[in-house]
Amino acid sequence: MVRPPLSKDTTLCISLASRPSNIGTRFHNYLYDELGLDFLYKAFTTTDIAAAIGGVRALGIRGCSVSMPFKSAVMALVDEIEPSAQVIESVNTIVNDDGYLRACNTDYLAVQSLIAEHGLNTDDAVIIRGSGGMANAVAAAFTGAGFGSGVIVARNGDAGRALAQRVGYRYAPEVGSLRAPIVVNVTPIGMAGAAGENQQAFDDDVIAAAATVFDVVALPSETPLITAARAAGTTVITGAEVIARQAAEQFERYTGVRPTAEQIAAASAISRA
Amino acid sequence: MVRPPLSKDTTLCISLASRPSNIGTRFHNYLYDELGLDFLYKAFTTTDIAAAIGGVRALGIRGCSVSMPFKSAVMALVDEIEPSAQVIESVNTIVNDDGYLRACNTDYLAVQSLIAEHGLNTDDAVIIRGSGGMANAVAAAFTGAGFGSGVIVARNGDAGRALAQRVGYRYAPEVGSLRAPIVVNVTPIGMAGAAGENQQAFDDDVIAAAATVFDVVALPSETPLITAARAAGTTVITGAEVIARQAAEQFERYTGVRPTAEQIAAASAISRA
Repeated sequence: MVRPPLSKDTTLCISLASRPSNIGTRFHNYLYDELGLDFLYKAFTTTDIAAAIGGVRALGIRGCSVSMPFKSAVMALVDEIEPSAQVIESVNTIVNDDGYLRACNTDYLAVQSLIAEHGLNTDDAVIIRGSGGMANAVAAAFTGAGFGSGVIVARNGDAGRALAQRVGYRYAPEVGSLRAPIVVNVTPIGMAGAAGENQQAFDDDVIAAAATVFDVVALPSETPLITAARAAGTTVITGAEVIARQAAEQFERYTGVRPTAEQIAAASAISRA
Repeated sequence: MVRPPLSKDTTLCISLASRPSNIGTRFHNYLYDELGLDFLYKAFTTTDIAAAIGGVRALGIRGCSVSMPFKSAVMALVDEIEPSAQVIESVNTIVNDDGYLRACNTDYLAVQSLIAEHGLNTDDAVIIRGSGGMANAVAAAFTGAGFGSGVIVARNGDAGRALAQRVGYRYAPEVGSLRAPIVVNVTPIGMAGAAGENQQAFDDDVIAAAATVFDVVALPSETPLITAARAAGTTVITGAEVIARQAAEQFERYTGVRPTAEQIAAASAISRA
């Protein structure tokens, strides 16, 4: 398919971040081309989030992806907040229907979608390592999906305890002797350029005791943790899956079209090249 | 030259109108391609001009072309109004320098530029037929350029008298026996689809007495008036020149690049195809 030439009728989607990357711009425009959609996507930054969201509304910009540091601030600027954003008080996606702005969090939705797809058992206990914004989304997605038993492991005691309390999980400062069927890394350990780039977020004996190892790190998605888990024959869920899933969810909400898994994979690869 | 692929660094320019056309979108994007500029232009409409201009500022949209019915309303929303817009209380172009919005009127500037280019003599009297927004811009451009003696001819007595008073010209309800070295049509007479589509805005004897015949009608630019003036060997200035000149002025203010006359002509032709 061929995207129609840009015209007054082309639908614009944007992103807002303090430090925009080109990933979203490449991802969405690649799929618009592939699917022949009369859409256009471009990343923006702003120093006035209220006026920027006002502009989204007034200019009829169809979709607005929201990154740091605007994920909380936009909550006061939209007309409706879906549960996925409400429970974690964090918005990453705004859809504009004729001036009515609806906010959601596709990270939360992507984690819940992957939990369902991989058939995780809600009776199983979960260890979640991390206490930042994405750990908040992941923990809320698990509790929201019915996983009642879990531990938040975080070196930052204040943030870790606060998150554990919010989702009704226990808190531990380190993994130590904790074991669970589901273990999730939401720290930067294993991320290219991070301090713990070459480390495993969970040791081999934690992996050995687990049925599923889930790593949210996406750059690279083959982290030392994922590599070790694959070697141990354990089921893995990677950060690449999270990113592809959340992007597909966002794409479908903006355009009404659901790309195939192959199209999403190609768009993800190209957007990170 | 080839325009770079769309990225987060691509500069966006837009237009705002109650009923957008594709002319500006085609014109500017054609020249971005020709000149290899990392710019993108798209027409928008809005029902909230204040929020739309706030969005231009907050999103760092570089340029904003303004059409009916927003030409006056935007004056209260910008940081600086140049004389070209101030004297006629009508803005058609906003340039955004890091959040500082400067407004001007490139119709006014285009008319003054054509007056200079065609070497019109400020001692000559001017007959201007019309009393609408563009007649306002044309009359102000002539008086601003130093043409002290003129008549506004308009069937609408209130509007005609008001315009004449504003620019210090006389008023007449019809051309009658009036003659002048410079005659300008700023009514729809001669415009495709208008009531007077096949009429001459000035009779042959008015043309015979004139040194320069100026018709602002651009669709078509070869109006009955221009055709008759050419046949009489009189110097003509056409609406196509006005449109091309104002668009070039706007383009240069947005991009810092001045296209050649040939590039402007090609862009104009393509944008109206």
